[in-house]
Amino acid sequence: MLLYLSTWSEIEQYLQRSRTIVVPIGSNEQHGPTGLLGTDWMCPEIICRHADQQGDILVAPTFNIGMAQHHLGFAGTISLRPSTFIAAIVDWTRSLARHGFEKILFLNGHGGNIASIEAAFSEIYAEASFAGRRTGFAMKLTNWWDLEGVNELAKEMFPTGHGAHATPSEIAVTQYAYELIKHADYAPRIAPSGPIREALDFRARFPDGRMGSDPNQATPEKGKALVELAAKSLVKELAAFGEEKVPG
Amino acid sequence: MLLYLSTWSEIEQYLQRSRTIVVPIGSNEQHGPTGLLGTDWMCPEIICRHADQQGDILVAPTFNIGMAQHHLGFAGTISLRPSTFIAAIVDWTRSLARHGFEKILFLNGHGGNIASIEAAFSEIYAEASFAGRRTGFAMKLTNWWDLEGVNELAKEMFPTGHGAHATPSEIAVTQYAYELIKHADYAPRIAPSGPIREALDFRARFPDGRMGSDPNQATPEKGKALVELAAKSLVKELAAFGEEKVPG
Amino acid sequence: MLLYLSTWSEIEQYLQRSRTIVVPIGSNEQHGPTGLLGTDWMCPEIICRHADQQGDILVAPTFNIGMAQHHLGFAGTISLRPSTFIAAIVDWTRSLARHGFEKILFLNGHGGNIASIEAAFSEIYAEASFAGRRTGFAMKLTNWWDLEGVNELAKEMFPTGHGAHATPSEIAVTQYAYELIKHADYAPRIAPSGPIREALDFRARFPDGRMGSDPNQATPEKGKALVELAAKSLVKELAAFGEEKVPG
Amino acid sequence: MLLYLSTWSEIEQYLQRSRTIVVPIGSNEQHGPTGLLGTDWMCPEIICRHADQQGDILVAPTFNIGMAQHHLGFAGTISLRPSTFIAAIVDWTRSLARHGFEKILFLNGHGGNIASIEAAFSEIYAEASFAGRRTGFAMKLTNWWDLEGVNELAKEMFPTGHGAHATPSEIAVTQYAYELIKHADYAPRIAPSGPIREALDFRARFPDGRMGSDPNQATPEKGKALVELAAKSLVKELAAFGEEKVPG
Amino acid sequence: MLLYLSTWSEIEQYLQRSRTIVVPIGSNEQHGPTGLLGTDWMCPEIICRHADQQGDILVAPTFNIGMAQHHLGFAGTISLRPSTFIAAIVDWTRSLARHGFEKILFLNGHGGNIASIEAAFSEIYAEASFAGRRTGFAMKLTNWWDLEGVNELAKEMFPTGHGAHATPSEIAVTQYAYELIKHADYAPRIAPSGPIREALDFRARFPDGRMGSDPNQATPEKGKALVELAAKSLVKELAAFGEEKVPG
Amino acid sequence: MLLYLSTWSEIEQYLQRSRTIVVPIGSNEQHGPTGLLGTDWMCPEIICRHADQQGDILVAPTFNIGMAQHHLGFAGTISLRPSTFIAAIVDWTRSLARHGFEKILFLNGHGGNIASIEAAFSEIYAEASFAGRRTGFAMKLTNWWDLEGVNELAKEMFPTGHGAHATPSEIAVTQYAYELIKHADYAPRIAPSGPIREALDFRARFPDGRMGSDPNQATPEKGKALVELAAKSLVKELAAFGEEKVPG
Repeated sequence: MLLYLSTWSEIEQYLQRSRTIVVPIGSNEQHGPTGLLGTDWMCPEIICRHADQQGDILVAPTFNIGMAQHHLGFAGTISLRPSTFIAAIVDWTRSLARHGFEKILFLNGHGGNIASIEAAFSEIYAEASFAGRRTGFAMKLTNWWDLEGVNELAKEMFPTGHGAHATPSEIAVTQYAYELIKHADYAPRIAPSGPIREALDFRARFPDGRMGSDPNQATPEKGKALVELAAKSLVKELAAFGEEKVPG
Repeated sequence: MLLYLSTWSEIEQYLQRSRTIVVPIGSNEQHGPTGLLGTDWMCPEIICRHADQQGDILVAPTFNIGMAQHHLGFAGTISLRPSTFIAAIVDWTRSLARHGFEKILFLNGHGGNIASIEAAFSEIYAEASFAGRRTGFAMKLTNWWDLEGVNELAKEMFPTGHGAHATPSEIAVTQYAYELIKHADYAPRIAPSGPIREALDFRARFPDGRMGSDPNQATPEKGKALVELAAKSLVKELAAFGEEKVPG
Repeated sequence: MLLYLSTWSEIEQYLQRSRTIVVPIGSNEQHGPTGLLGTDWMCPEIICRHADQQGDILVAPTFNIGMAQHHLGFAGTISLRPSTFIAAIVDWTRSLARHGFEKILFLNGHGGNIASIEAAFSEIYAEASFAGRRTGFAMKLTNWWDLEGVNELAKEMFPTGHGAHATPSEIAVTQYAYELIKHADYAPRIAPSGPIREALDFRARFPDGRMGSDPNQATPEKGKALVELAAKSLVKELAAFGEEKVPG
Repeated sequence: MLLYLSTWSEIEQYLQRSRTIVVPIGSNEQHGPTGLLGTDWMCPEIICRHADQQGDILVAPTFNIGMAQHHLGFAGTISLRPSTFIAAIVDWTRSLARHGFEKILFLNGHGGNIASIEAAFSEIYAEASFAGRRTGFAMKLTNWWDLEGVNELAKEMFPTGHGAHATPSEIAVTQYAYELIKHADYAPRIAPSGPIREALDFRARFPDGRMGSDPNQATPEKGKALVELAAKSLVKELAAFGEEKVPG
Repeated sequence: MLLYLSTWSEIEQYLQRSRTIVVPIGSNEQHGPTGLLGTDWMCPEIICRHADQQGDILVAPTFNIGMAQHHLGFAGTISLRPSTFIAAIVDWTRSLARHGFEKILFLNGHGGNIASIEAAFSEIYAEASFAGRRTGFAMKLTNWWDLEGVNELAKEMFPTGHGAHATPSEIAVTQYAYELIKHADYAPRIAPSGPIREALDFRARFPDGRMGSDPNQATPEKGKALVELAAKSLVKELAAFGEEKVPG
Repeated sequence: MLLYLSTWSEIEQYLQRSRTIVVPIGSNEQHGPTGLLGTDWMCPEIICRHADQQGDILVAPTFNIGMAQHHLGFAGTISLRPSTFIAAIVDWTRSLARHGFEKILFLNGHGGNIASIEAAFSEIYAEASFAGRRTGFAMKLTNWWDLEGVNELAKEMFPTGHGAHATPSEIAVTQYAYELIKHADYAPRIAPSGPIREALDFRARFPDGRMGSDPNQATPEKGKALVELAAKSLVKELAAFGEEKVPG
């Protein structure tokens, strides 16, 4: 069930049978010479929509702008500061908790979001902790590549040149979903690695935007396999999260 | 051109020929018994995508969660506080300005966003004003119903019962784009009007979520006509905004 | 009754018979070659004091610095950022609500404040909406020129050259109240119009500070008529607001 | 010269001959059974206006709402949080500095403001200090009772029962300026003293709002003497501050 | 009892017999040619540890970075902005109050902290005051030199050249505790005095970092006497604060 | 070299030969029945002081209060909200960068800090990235247990029952440094594992405060070995970080 294509009373009915929701979350940022700027928010969105056809889950709108300050040296990147990001997650979560959602899973598509998402969770929990009360809900962060079996499949498909940014697996996912394949001659074939700092430093280290990856290995077929596996694992993870009991 | 389906170098090329971008912005909130929760962010997104097929424009990802605190009494609504909203617009704008965009048009789909968008613009301009420098870019807010000719067409289509929330025109737009038509018996046919305050007050005044509207008048055909006109006007408005000279 | 010339026990007694208060709110900013810097906060203050002599109302101190970033290119302008403005309105309102005021009307004298005032209202309501509780009070924004009959009178007095900033009507009001009339040769007689952006842009577009107005039409007599009408309408509006029932 | 009764070009001319401005700053808060709620912002305003008739000084609008959280248990008190207060002072100061003011003196009328004013100064200086640059202006806090000779005169007039809040000297000043004298039977004659904490604690310790004072000793004549001395000292202090050289 | 060398259950037991805690608070900033950068946080820490050997008190970890923006022109200084400082005190206090501490005394070692500490107290109290509830705890600020008898002893030891920064008394305290004595030829012997503004202004006025002081008068023996007196007075002050009743 | 036991001119001299500094950072929080509340900030402090005796490094004061909201259900825990934590790291870093430090390594002792530290780094880098400039410095986060060889040694020492909180390795470190050994009968011997949420949830899941650990395995001797290895590795890591070239 896609929340944005539902009416409020349909959500009210869903809440009678489940208190679990999944929020696709990512980033809009450069993905090398051939990767789409929307890759990181489209991947979890694609997986959620696929999962939606396989189980009775509820998918929130996509949190599509993330923490991508290091990519701002490449045109088209849009980034929130961590402080803005945290404030936004607080508001999304308070809104969902207001309606009675008790298990809120953020399916993440961008490594650079992880710290800010976890900091946001702590910001939310802290209010309850200072006040000495229960929140009544739990949040969980899952990167789509950490869904059961997905990392293993990606390693099998791309034993070398998977890398950390503009990876062949994420590019394969968007190729499959959008039927949009772009080409470039990569030099070097596998991009360099290194630390992540401010945008100008990043562009100097990673001139075409890739980090450690060889995106040329991506194909729509591989993307299809990844999406199907990830969607199946997501349905299971949501079910397990929904059933999890909280201690008294 | 859809930014999120482009690569960073394609955006770099676009910037060679234009410095203008449009950001669809809306809200995810209840829209009465039959309106979709995503109506307010989907309408500007639909219009932008339609316009994209008619002119060389650039469409940013959709800012999909707005200022909807008054709708929080209805399941599925997600709202930012105005302070969070402003911080997010600041970050989006700084990101786009960083790449050289000089004309940033927010195509808005939610009346409740207007104050926060304008406050955000002022927050951004204020930094330059305190410092005594030019920003180098201009922002503009346009509600999609204020695009040339659109209000007139809506009035012609819906002489009574257009109202202010869950209007037949916005519902017609989503019916056309998503081929998704939901039904309900409305009582009263035209919803009441009144002030907007906190969520519980809102729900007491507007029990099914509508404000002054009769959404039953919506049809996909009317939606098609609205989208086509709005898209055409948007292309013209973007061209005019892009050509506007700033005084020295 | 002027709050600042009262004791706390007099306010306590007032609260026995009424829960309504009016807050004059404006801005301290340039008003063209002859307009006073205090025009925008003095106009609502003048009208409130006049109204105070005609009915049992309670007037708060004047919120005298507003959102005037665009005027910072002219000496004497003082501006809050929208974020500061919102924080201040939150504190004023929480203070008044703490004492039991249930109807808080902001009588506004500056168009540039509107977005920030409305955003502040939403910021306040949002806390209640997230928490699922009633606020127990209502806020209302009324521009003094929107008080019953005032716009009509101004149009009658100034059929052309009223404009949007440094208008003859606001200057007439201060001429009447302060008996202070300043002169200048205006060229052009009616100032230009255009968009509002950062301060340097504003000064380039509107070199003497006026927007679309011809302030030479102002006279103390016209100011007197405007004040008397506005004050009378304010007393009525406060009474109506005070009597308004909130739905259960 | 009163800034708010001036035009922007008059301020521009003033800046040719002086870079100094005084900002009356106070609080709107209960002042015991007979003191006016506006006492703390009216006192510095009264003194500034009096001083304005004696020297070529420039008086800003009055910062009339201060840090008065402890008085919120008494009707009519309006308070900013320190964080809001600091943000507002930052904005006032940036605005004034933008126009070229180099010496900004805050004439304060409320002891409870002192910490927040000084913290605000540090917040402003800190930006320059982190960046390793000069601010180009200096701020100064002077309580009106610390103006040369004023404390001495007050001690002479009120050897006992001056106290710390709702003092006979501040009440005398407003009696003189507003010709408004209110009476009450005080029991005890001199109010108790003690620490300042949250509002309910304050009201329990100081049931009628006074702290250590016997306001019955106030007379308009004493107020006149205090105002005249304070105004004279203010003119001198502004001159000295204006002439102060900053080290290279 | 040192909190950080205790277990949580030992603190739980302490709370059975006392609800009072002392927090050493200072700053890390230049202290002239011979003073240690840690002087201002080490002094209250030293005194607290000494007092801990004389009475059943509880010492929190040291708040070691304060408001020292004016010292940033000298290497090694670390400063918080007042706004950050206030947020941190709010969190420390909410944490301690959460455990049941009812009397929280901040033993301060840096004059530049005073405004920010008091503003933080008001920020905390304000939340309760707006909400109309008691906090359940009290905060108190005591500078170590204001502990009973300490100022008198320092004046006796250093009748001239005590000054305001890098004073012989604080340097004596660290000499005693750390057995670390550094030497310099001071010119002039007693440093100049003046206002405190941004860092570059400060360094221009006070070229070697001292303000009004002659640190050469410090000796470990004098430090010992100061610490012993201060510790004794601290134990008494904590006892008195702990016994203080709050009004109902 | 310990910064707080140095003078500003000694730091200035250090900066002639090195631009690298290490900041011990941790948390003050419960560590089970026998672990000290200060464990997480004392461990990196202990290691830094030990390393200081082996190489020419510079150690900043300890950032001793971290993000520990989940431990607030246990007496003595003090926590910052992530937003406060981030603001503080921003200020520390701006201060150090102001003096010319180019490599700032945070040696962390608390897993719960990681997200907030990384978010803080991004907040700092983002300012430069939005502005399109280099920062001129780099930050690095290293957990002390991730220093070269340390995890391996800990696994060897504690093949089972190391766990995630109140681990035998961190307790061994404080036993060694403070010669303070506390005992308890643990039931169960190895504490349970589970997710981290708000404080009341945490206490319900982990009744004595431990997570997955058996602290009884700690001994001062093991602590000594861990400190010595960690200190040696820290010196090497600081040297490597200091020598790292940034791309042009």
